[in-house]
Amino acid sequence: MSHPVLAELWRGDLVESFHRGSFAVLDADGAVVRQAGDIERPVYPRSAVKGLQALPLVASGAAERFGLDDAELALACASHGGEPAHVETAQRMLAKAGLDAAVLECGAHWPSNEAASRALAARGETPHALHNNCSGKHSGFACVGCLMAGDPDAARGFLRGYVEAPHPVMREIGAAIEAATGTRLADAPRTTDGCSIPTFGIPLRALALAFARFGTGIGLAPDHARAAARLRAAVAAQPFMVAGTGRLDTRLMTHFGQRLFCKVGAEGVYCAALPELGLGLALKMDDGNNARAAEVAVVALIESLLPLSQADRATTQPLRDVTLKNWNGRTVGRLAATSLLDVRNVGD
Amino acid sequence: MSHPVLAELWRGDLVESFHRGSFAVLDADGAVVRQAGDIERPVYPRSAVKGLQALPLVASGAAERFGLDDAELALACASHGGEPAHVETAQRMLAKAGLDAAVLECGAHWPSNEAASRALAARGETPHALHNNCSGKHSGFACVGCLMAGDPDAARGFLRGYVEAPHPVMREIGAAIEAATGTRLADAPRTTDGCSIPTFGIPLRALALAFARFGTGIGLAPDHARAAARLRAAVAAQPFMVAGTGRLDTRLMTHFGQRLFCKVGAEGVYCAALPELGLGLALKMDDGNNARAAEVAVVALIESLLPLSQADRATTQPLRDVTLKNWNGRTVGRLAATSLLDVRNVGD
Repeated sequence: MSHPVLAELWRGDLVESFHRGSFAVLDADGAVVRQAGDIERPVYPRSAVKGLQALPLVASGAAERFGLDDAELALACASHGGEPAHVETAQRMLAKAGLDAAVLECGAHWPSNEAASRALAARGETPHALHNNCSGKHSGFACVGCLMAGDPDAARGFLRGYVEAPHPVMREIGAAIEAATGTRLADAPRTTDGCSIPTFGIPLRALALAFARFGTGIGLAPDHARAAARLRAAVAAQPFMVAGTGRLDTRLMTHFGQRLFCKVGAEGVYCAALPELGLGLALKMDDGNNARAAEVAVVALIESLLPLSQADRATTQPLRDVTLKNWNGRTVGRLAATSLLDVRNVGD
Repeated sequence: MSHPVLAELWRGDLVESFHRGSFAVLDADGAVVRQAGDIERPVYPRSAVKGLQALPLVASGAAERFGLDDAELALACASHGGEPAHVETAQRMLAKAGLDAAVLECGAHWPSNEAASRALAARGETPHALHNNCSGKHSGFACVGCLMAGDPDAARGFLRGYVEAPHPVMREIGAAIEAATGTRLADAPRTTDGCSIPTFGIPLRALALAFARFGTGIGLAPDHARAAARLRAAVAAQPFMVAGTGRLDTRLMTHFGQRLFCKVGAEGVYCAALPELGLGLALKMDDGNNARAAEVAVVALIESLLPLSQADRATTQPLRDVTLKNWNGRTVGRLAATSLLDVRNVGD
């Protein structure tokens, strides 16, 4: 099965490159509102489900116990750029639980934010776990573990190996994904994510359903429904924390606030909740291209679903039809979502 | 038309992402030896034709006049990583013609080699034109222009605007591409490349033919045939210059020497000459993915064409089936060319 083309790179009068993909839009009752391509094939959602993975942080009472604020909860849902504010916020989360970066098992990589990365290099430093784009999520896991263990001293031992599937913390995270997606994870394909926790193969249909539930609370247990509302409010209040300077999730949620909760995942995955419509969406580009393919496609999809004002369109339009410049600043092309995504409803 | 899948990213037991593309393998008489997908659609070859663009540097006599050595000629064919040796070599090429980096019109970008980039940042410096991956090619253009202008003083004025299609230097470059590919560029789609020179839409069939000619001299004018042989020898002698540390073109040509001339281009393009077989190949990934998709695909294609020893296979195998590790060094997947590429001859 060949998926439809969702994004095209135009250079001069030619389509130079193009990106195929599939997507599902569902309501919280499981009705498919729109779809393209195969939505039953399992895909690894990767970081696109960080919002679901943060549910236990709030539902367990850990967020309240350690007094986590909006910025910290938003960072727990983040794939951040490793900018100074992100690093400091992760550190603060851990400190509130009496912990530090030594407990993190996510590994280290250079900040994806170029300025942050160059500043680090300029200081002669190398990155540590707090710079990892997942450090907020992992700091959230550490807070959950600290609540389970009872105190910071016990937590340091208890947290060892928390990234492994059988660990009590990871079992909570898995249970949250299982409940939201309605997918039995024991039967799902499983592999290791970039930050070493398990990631499970889940159909786009189930991921879109999970985000419809995340956006509405419908179909979630009451504590998870409250947690989802709290996390959505936190990200809307602190959208910088969920991604960073110039990044799509931050730009969209800065504009739309609580009208939209969206999250990119590695390998061209996007998930989003549109609470006012009661819809969730999940998208995967075949080729795994995030930065350009999944981004313009998801913006076009959101545009086609959400009722938009002129100001809304002024925000979304340049994000779904991006001008490309070369090293001399000359316009050389554009990257644009295809018109397939404009259709308001496949069934119309 | 949906192109075949040429590369797959496996994560656990699932294909997480996959890459479609097309390719052509031709002999110097224009016979198609192998093909997949649409080989008549024009594609922008981008940097994959830097070897062809360097033909006038040698054929004009500029290389001899300015005493360019193997390293400098290899750099003229390069998309280099901006490592110190690359930057110094470009500077030396210009100095031999009595010029400096001020004549370059390629723009500046951070070195693609991460260590070079971080070292630059650590010194508080920012990149200049010599760091541009195309600086060797542009230094070659400047040498051609200096020969045309007669002396360095005249050349500085003469070279202004050399990146534009009507400039005498760029006309020479265009004529070399036109002759090698047998394509009338006046009728071809045209756009601006990353380094601001024109790039022309040329079918894979014609690009593969050009590289069969580049590898054998058959079908080229005598001065271009000699120039191609000189450039192939230079790159084989100095394969570091054509790309850099860890880069595929450097790795392959370090191993194969004059048995292979290969060159990556932006947006998932690869061209190569296999002189002992009299063949040329051209490949384009639909999605423009170079670093992983085009690379494993082109290695598999070369593997299927070249007679290989065990030592050859020990070099190529890990380059067509690449182990992927996460931030903790854990193996999380593999990126592999598909078996479609193994078929020795589509007609068999």
